Amino acid sequence: MAKKVLIVYAHESPASFNAAAKDAAVATLTAQGCTVEVSDLYAMKFKAAATTEDITGGVKDAENFSYAKEIKLASEEGRLADDIKKEQEKLKEADLVIFQFPMYWSSVPAIMKGWMDRVLGFTYAQEKRYSEGIFKDKKAMLSFTTDCPESVYSDTGINGDINVTLWPLQNGILNYCGFQVFAPQIFWDPATGSPESRSSMLEGWRTRLQNLCGEASVYFAPLDYFDKEKGFLLKPEVKEKYASKESGLTVGIHMGKPLPANSQTKAGV
Amino acid sequence: MAKKVLIVYAHESPASFNAAAKDAAVATLTAQGCTVEVSDLYAMKFKAAATTEDITGGVKDAENFSYAKEIKLASEEGRLADDIKKEQEKLKEADLVIFQFPMYWSSVPAIMKGWMDRVLGFTYAQEKRYSEGIFKDKKAMLSFTTDCPESVYSDTGINGDINVTLWPLQNGILNYCGFQVFAPQIFWDPATGSPESRSSMLEGWRTRLQNLCGEASVYFAPLDYFDKEKGFLLKPEVKEKYASKESGLTVGIHMGKPLPANSQTKAGV
Repeated sequence: MAKKVLIVYAHESPASFNAAAKDAAVATLTAQGCTVEVSDLYAMKFKAAATTEDITGGVKDAENFSYAKEIKLASEEGRLADDIKKEQEKLKEADLVIFQFPMYWSSVPAIMKGWMDRVLGFTYAQEKRYSEGIFKDKKAMLSFTTDCPESVYSDTGINGDINVTLWPLQNGILNYCGFQVFAPQIFWDPATGSPESRSSMLEGWRTRLQNLCGEASVYFAPLDYFDKEKGFLLKPEVKEKYASKESGLTVGIHMGKPLPANSQTKAGV
Repeated sequence: MAKKVLIVYAHESPASFNAAAKDAAVATLTAQGCTVEVSDLYAMKFKAAATTEDITGGVKDAENFSYAKEIKLASEEGRLADDIKKEQEKLKEADLVIFQFPMYWSSVPAIMKGWMDRVLGFTYAQEKRYSEGIFKDKKAMLSFTTDCPESVYSDTGINGDINVTLWPLQNGILNYCGFQVFAPQIFWDPATGSPESRSSMLEGWRTRLQNLCGEASVYFAPLDYFDKEKGFLLKPEVKEKYASKESGLTVGIHMGKPLPANSQTKAGV
């Protein structure tokens, strides 16, 4: 089945490894019959800061200004800035969204955080979230480069477990919006390796892309595990069900137990 | 002792709770004899995107462009953009840096991520990091508002343990640069509460600020626990030392064990 794919891409240099990874995705997915759209954030000079200018016709509550609430209202009333509207149109069409970026300071570069703050902002004040989130029929994934080897991001490595680092991005943003999240594509320190190792990483990515849409997604606890009336805590029957399990449900919802290994880096763990 | 404090502040509205928290910090710290400087990012229209424009006189390696490496070189050669230089001057003077912001998507708003990417960027490619990081004689802390109650961010709450969410910010950025990190000041959902509850939150903050500089800092594993020659993994003797401990060292360096409770939200845990 032909899919529509949106690649949100954040690297300034067309000669970078990130550009090569983006180009490989465009070529491989297009060859499969997918329609691929790229939002090249630096080329677009995408505005990163979430400001009142994102809302046309003035904000409703300047006294107690909440970006999420104002952007939701403005979205319902068609009063969003044009650049946000355009990205939301692309998003609406997409079956799959790939975020391609170099990891900066354990997260996405500011320009990509700006895309998330501004384009996804309207979803934040919704009642619909997590497994009932508005993008629950869409897939999303992170594809990124690091500047250190994998060991550094292990649970005995100096940067700490990459699964912990990924939690706020994959759970707090992607899963929150309802996206089914594919395991991340992590390119470990391509800058330090040889040209051959970079080629081999890209070849691995191309191979993965052949069957990407058939992959299972990363596990997150479903919305109905939580009691809305009681501070969105796990329901007693769910806690009981998992009480004898050795590890927690997910990285963040760990219930005081060891984290499930590879919870954010492998599908269905 | 009189201290120099830099508050990096990211809210657009002077009537916001974040503004009140920032004003409370300025007033309380000034009354103690501290010199307080505020970088009001929205008012400054601070450029968020890390681009080649941040480097004057051209980049050295356009083929294999690395922002961190280029910015480090440019920093050594005095070729950074003026707005970055100004912020670095403030940072150089500061004994304590407070980041005041509304949490957006489990992290800092894009404009503040831009400050981190651009102003702290030069530290990233240094040999000096973590407990030997260049800011090891300085303190830093996060002070932020959420739009949900504390239960939602517990280890059985739907957003997951706040200690996990804080790890990439507090370890991956502040601790990486060497800062001693004070426990975060978290204002839980001030927008939903009554005016009295907001006043009471601010009063608590003022009280804390009276003795802030005397507080102990959040625990992170020291640099010499890791073997530089072996992928920055914990040294065997350190692993052995902590083998019988019930919980891991920190949130990220959890060694497959339960996370130490409140590791990122309380000092010295």
